[in-house]
Amino acid sequence: MALIVQKYGGTSVGSTEKIKKVAERVTESHKKGNRLVVVLSAMAGQTDALINLSKEITGIPDPRELDVLVATGEQISISLFAMAVKSMGYDCCSLLGFQAAIHTDQAYGKARIKKIDTDRILKELDENRIVAVAGFQGIDESGNITTLGRGGSDTTAVALAAALKAAQCEIFTDVEGVFSADPNICTRARKLESISYEEMLELASLGAKVLDIRSIEFAKKFNVPIHVRSSFARNEGTMVVAENKEMEKVLVSGVVFDRNQARITMVKVPDRPGIAFKILDPVFKAGIVVDMIVQNPSAEGLTDLTFTATKTHFQETLKLVREVAKEIGAEKVLGDQDIAKVSIVGLGMRNHAGVASKMFETLAKENINISMISTSEIKISCIIEEKYTELAVRALHDAFGLGNEKD
Amino acid sequence: MALIVQKYGGTSVGSTEKIKKVAERVTESHKKGNRLVVVLSAMAGQTDALINLSKEITGIPDPRELDVLVATGEQISISLFAMAVKSMGYDCCSLLGFQAAIHTDQAYGKARIKKIDTDRILKELDENRIVAVAGFQGIDESGNITTLGRGGSDTTAVALAAALKAAQCEIFTDVEGVFSADPNICTRARKLESISYEEMLELASLGAKVLDIRSIEFAKKFNVPIHVRSSFARNEGTMVVAENKEMEKVLVSGVVFDRNQARITMVKVPDRPGIAFKILDPVFKAGIVVDMIVQNPSAEGLTDLTFTATKTHFQETLKLVREVAKEIGAEKVLGDQDIAKVSIVGLGMRNHAGVASKMFETLAKENINISMISTSEIKISCIIEEKYTELAVRALHDAFGLGNEKD
Repeated sequence: MALIVQKYGGTSVGSTEKIKKVAERVTESHKKGNRLVVVLSAMAGQTDALINLSKEITGIPDPRELDVLVATGEQISISLFAMAVKSMGYDCCSLLGFQAAIHTDQAYGKARIKKIDTDRILKELDENRIVAVAGFQGIDESGNITTLGRGGSDTTAVALAAALKAAQCEIFTDVEGVFSADPNICTRARKLESISYEEMLELASLGAKVLDIRSIEFAKKFNVPIHVRSSFARNEGTMVVAENKEMEKVLVSGVVFDRNQARITMVKVPDRPGIAFKILDPVFKAGIVVDMIVQNPSAEGLTDLTFTATKTHFQETLKLVREVAKEIGAEKVLGDQDIAKVSIVGLGMRNHAGVASKMFETLAKENINISMISTSEIKISCIIEEKYTELAVRALHDAFGLGNEKD
Repeated sequence: MALIVQKYGGTSVGSTEKIKKVAERVTESHKKGNRLVVVLSAMAGQTDALINLSKEITGIPDPRELDVLVATGEQISISLFAMAVKSMGYDCCSLLGFQAAIHTDQAYGKARIKKIDTDRILKELDENRIVAVAGFQGIDESGNITTLGRGGSDTTAVALAAALKAAQCEIFTDVEGVFSADPNICTRARKLESISYEEMLELASLGAKVLDIRSIEFAKKFNVPIHVRSSFARNEGTMVVAENKEMEKVLVSGVVFDRNQARITMVKVPDRPGIAFKILDPVFKAGIVVDMIVQNPSAEGLTDLTFTATKTHFQETLKLVREVAKEIGAEKVLGDQDIAKVSIVGLGMRNHAGVASKMFETLAKENINISMISTSEIKISCIIEEKYTELAVRALHDAFGLGNEKD
């Protein structure tokens, strides 16, 4: 009797019909003898509808009360799901964050799980019940409701799998697994059988939306095998697991891109210690995530500082940086939204030289100019002109031999 | 600094605009120096919408899970309310059933409050916060969510007022108070300044919908003064309080009617011990509430048994009773839906003779025939033809001098 944690996202439980379908799938696994803990997200659209309701009350809703409000979304899913399972003749019990004893810190809207007391869940499992747990929510030490932020249900599932020492954490989603590239762009993209936590972390940071980053970190820390698979298809998906010998043989696992990027350059800044901090501090303080940062000397005693942020925050960032530019006497500030980031990720890079030069060569062959480069141990990212995105992804996918046999 | 519990019903919080209005009213009372605990119902229509969602899943939803589902209604109201109060610059904190420590038995859908631990509420009040408590919900000893059934928020409010030893429990509703008769029928109906718990209990049992019966029983038991008043008007409503000398001077406090009544008669039943039980047991077992029961000998060894139930259950009751009639060899079963119950209620009846005869005389003067009579210490009810309902109410209202000065 394997203990399995399953997680179904918002689109998988988007209607009462879909909830019944999920209940069928869960009971099938239960019939095979598995002990099941099922984590559900709110029905698709529900969380946004609740947030809109709060905006009718006030522009800046109190964070504690916003968590109380949005936590109802998952409460609705799990109760409907438990009803569906029971109506099929199986025993089931829904548990909210406080009942499942998911203890978090008090950071409303972005709480972190500190501890899970599994007593209640194990008791329900021992009585042969399927246990439905509300994703995304927990409770702080004073008994206040907290939520884990967007994508939080993935984290709930992995944290539960870790605490319960589950054999596996199955993440059911609207894609069939993790692909070597976006199949919408790259028709030869291949579903990966398995991928390491490290690679999955890089892919998620680079814009792949299959798994929430924190859930991967959790899985890595507690060595929880994750199975990413489709809610709507029956075939196997992708296993996200600890690195193994086999994986290192592969140079590159996947190619990803992110179009939601913009570049900002401050030209001819007086070059003195702490200048990067001076320029970027207001941006950090505004909560804007800065990705790549490059500093180049431009003339005697002057330097150019370039960085990227998301397009979503482009105008706000530009405004903040222009104020600093005036203050410190920089020549001007340039902005460019027509860029994209293309990245390759692979454990093999650590032990094989020449991966970077192969990437640059591939892009050069297609006449694609690289304006910024950033690397990590298992990743290389290049900023290119946005219009070349698809071309770059396909060329890299081919160059590293990631695809299915040519058809 | 008086501690006051206020309760606002579903129509009072039926939209985000209305929730803001309630927040304004509450903060006004807070500014006067009152310590406030505010109990809210779900936004009007919300509970029905949730129940409909459960019906899409299954015809007979699991009671435990149905409580988890419908409890979200009040969770939404209190979080939106707390946001509204905070956006006005006052401190506020919402508490769910488990946080407010409202302990109930495990009767899902109709749980009874056993105990309230007031520590958390008092702590929040001591920090000068307005405390918003979810009505209608509690928690059983295993930490499961329970609900108190329709009208449960009144009970939550009164129970909190009792536990907190509040100076008063204000029930804000869509009427201005308790009236001597329905103002829609009786233009001279008068808003009562005060009424005893006993009278209010009779009025509520007889169909007045102002207060939930259990909340009145609770208030009576713990001597909590209830102030029934309008959410939309500023004037004083009706105080529901312990009996006092002044009240006993009044013969009759109010006239009420109930059109949702039907009469069923089994004719010529063999008269033997236990026959009433034999006839009514299937009806009781079907969960149908039987109100008046009258048994009259009709011929040697035969008897007629007549009882009333609600029109809503008329057909079902008729079917059940016809089966029994066949079995025991009764002559026939008659049904009549064109009836209504008219009642007068008043503490004064206990010490004054002649109230009943004055009621019968008044109806006789109007040529209204009485087909059944039932009395309690402070109430007399008569079954009459439905078409005379308004006439009977007005005649009794005048006869007992309940109205405002004739205008």
